Amino acid sequence: MSKIISVIQYGLGPIGCAVALHIIEREGLELVGAVDIDPKKVGRDVGEVIGLNKQIGFSVAEKIISALKPNNADVALHTTSSYFSLFKDQIIEILEHGLDIVSTSEELTFPWLSHAAEASEIDAAAKKAGKTVLGTGINPGFLMDSLPLNLTAICQRVDHIEVTRMINASTRRGPFQAKIGSGITVEQFNKKISSGQMGHIGLSESISMVFDTLGKKLEKYESDVQPVVADQTIKTDFFEVQPGRVKGLKQTARGYSEKGEFMSLQFIAALGLEDDLDTVRIKGKPDLEVKLKGTHGDIATVAILVNAVRNVQKANPGLVTMRDLPIVTCR
Amino acid sequence: MSKIISVIQYGLGPIGCAVALHIIEREGLELVGAVDIDPKKVGRDVGEVIGLNKQIGFSVAEKIISALKPNNADVALHTTSSYFSLFKDQIIEILEHGLDIVSTSEELTFPWLSHAAEASEIDAAAKKAGKTVLGTGINPGFLMDSLPLNLTAICQRVDHIEVTRMINASTRRGPFQAKIGSGITVEQFNKKISSGQMGHIGLSESISMVFDTLGKKLEKYESDVQPVVADQTIKTDFFEVQPGRVKGLKQTARGYSEKGEFMSLQFIAALGLEDDLDTVRIKGKPDLEVKLKGTHGDIATVAILVNAVRNVQKANPGLVTMRDLPIVTCR
Repeated sequence: MSKIISVIQYGLGPIGCAVALHIIEREGLELVGAVDIDPKKVGRDVGEVIGLNKQIGFSVAEKIISALKPNNADVALHTTSSYFSLFKDQIIEILEHGLDIVSTSEELTFPWLSHAAEASEIDAAAKKAGKTVLGTGINPGFLMDSLPLNLTAICQRVDHIEVTRMINASTRRGPFQAKIGSGITVEQFNKKISSGQMGHIGLSESISMVFDTLGKKLEKYESDVQPVVADQTIKTDFFEVQPGRVKGLKQTARGYSEKGEFMSLQFIAALGLEDDLDTVRIKGKPDLEVKLKGTHGDIATVAILVNAVRNVQKANPGLVTMRDLPIVTCR
Repeated sequence: MSKIISVIQYGLGPIGCAVALHIIEREGLELVGAVDIDPKKVGRDVGEVIGLNKQIGFSVAEKIISALKPNNADVALHTTSSYFSLFKDQIIEILEHGLDIVSTSEELTFPWLSHAAEASEIDAAAKKAGKTVLGTGINPGFLMDSLPLNLTAICQRVDHIEVTRMINASTRRGPFQAKIGSGITVEQFNKKISSGQMGHIGLSESISMVFDTLGKKLEKYESDVQPVVADQTIKTDFFEVQPGRVKGLKQTARGYSEKGEFMSLQFIAALGLEDDLDTVRIKGKPDLEVKLKGTHGDIATVAILVNAVRNVQKANPGLVTMRDLPIVTCR
């Protein structure tokens, strides 16, 4: 048997709590501490905060240094912010305490094009610490980047990649339904979009990873978010959306090489859609069409984060991305 | 620009010729030599033998040492036999001449369970030479092993994996149609199966790779091949199959852990099927269903072989498998 890997959960929002619960049920991993800045969580027993229905014997720490006492740890699973401006110092601090890091921070999944300076800083800190940092998730991290890249393995030529993700938000958490604009007006929606308060993060990271890995220069990047408007009343456990109100969002992104459009992504999350469906279409030699059913966002994000722990433990020090590592598996 | 990788094509059967043609059209790779033992090919211009419709300026060598004069090379693409008993000495010899190797040899794709001694011997020779050896292909190598493994990245728990590959052989080469028994009687089919002259190689390698990677012990392995019998006359460019005669094969394999069946593979190749379709079904948390259209066996095999060249050039010395490398892409 390989040694038990001890894990700190850093961030106890909904995903962080789900990650912590999953670490507890996974063989080979042990949850040894948890960090969150929320005063309502700090000091309380971690089992209670994450919804374990029993005490776990240690409490939520406000700082990583406190979480590491009395036990040291191998890896931090980091689930706080999407943005470098908010998470960078956290990553550096965790590295200074000598932990590998697997993070859900979207901007970290492929920062080499749009955040090269910050990426280099984290890479240097990781190398200095002899530790590895990975940003991953279902999207970005898998469905729209590393999986399509893996599918190109069986192509002699790739002319275009299209990925469409359709999420029926009716089956998801209330906060997710809120996040996609359920129940607000189109005017409110557009205001939130223009102020940067809404929209899925990560499409540009996925396009950057694919372009860079396939050796293409990203000459132009376009993105757009539109509301999906209800044409009849839709009820979920959390919302009742009247006709004319927003029931979700449709986000698109396109990446162009010097030869024209090479990649297009569509992210559609709305109430009352049919089943979730993800489609990857590759034009080239051969043409490929791959349809995925069942890729539940929250379950999958927790899974890939925890599954990546072994890869990060074995990887060379530095900031790595999903395209740098051997395939992540549910071992 | 990264340096041009010079390639020897070792084996000039139908796949080897297709690989050589593809190397010639790929940026970043250069075909510098070719090897085959067929006296009808040795000494003839490689361009002519592979169907390039023009001379290439060097001829087919019978031995790797001759192919390496006057140019040295970086990598050999090896497409000869499926079986260790036939290819092992070839691999060792190529390593002794200091080349990395990407091979289509099915038994090489994951030899650690059923051919551990031979695998260790090749691994040692590769490490001694400071070179890397990889066995890959569409199947084994991708569809039934590394791709399903990659899909488990988004699973918190995997209870069962099923992969079905359906190939409409009507659209394939004549030799492929012959290989699956087109036109023979059921009696002839069964005789060929029992004498080991027919059947797809690699299902056990795929199951071994998945079990080993997911940390499961392969307690029992079962396999079976049945004829697919025509119920009406089927015509292709190469065969006319009467009702009652064989039009293809259906091959199954199952791997069991101590908890029961964990993986089942079905490989169906027959004339007159509908479109090719590959399906991966994972039962666990979540349940996943992934359907692939367009994975043409010959095109895909050539592609993954050539696409893997960069990975093998960057890998540590030794015998590696698809689960050990960063994702192979069509760069």
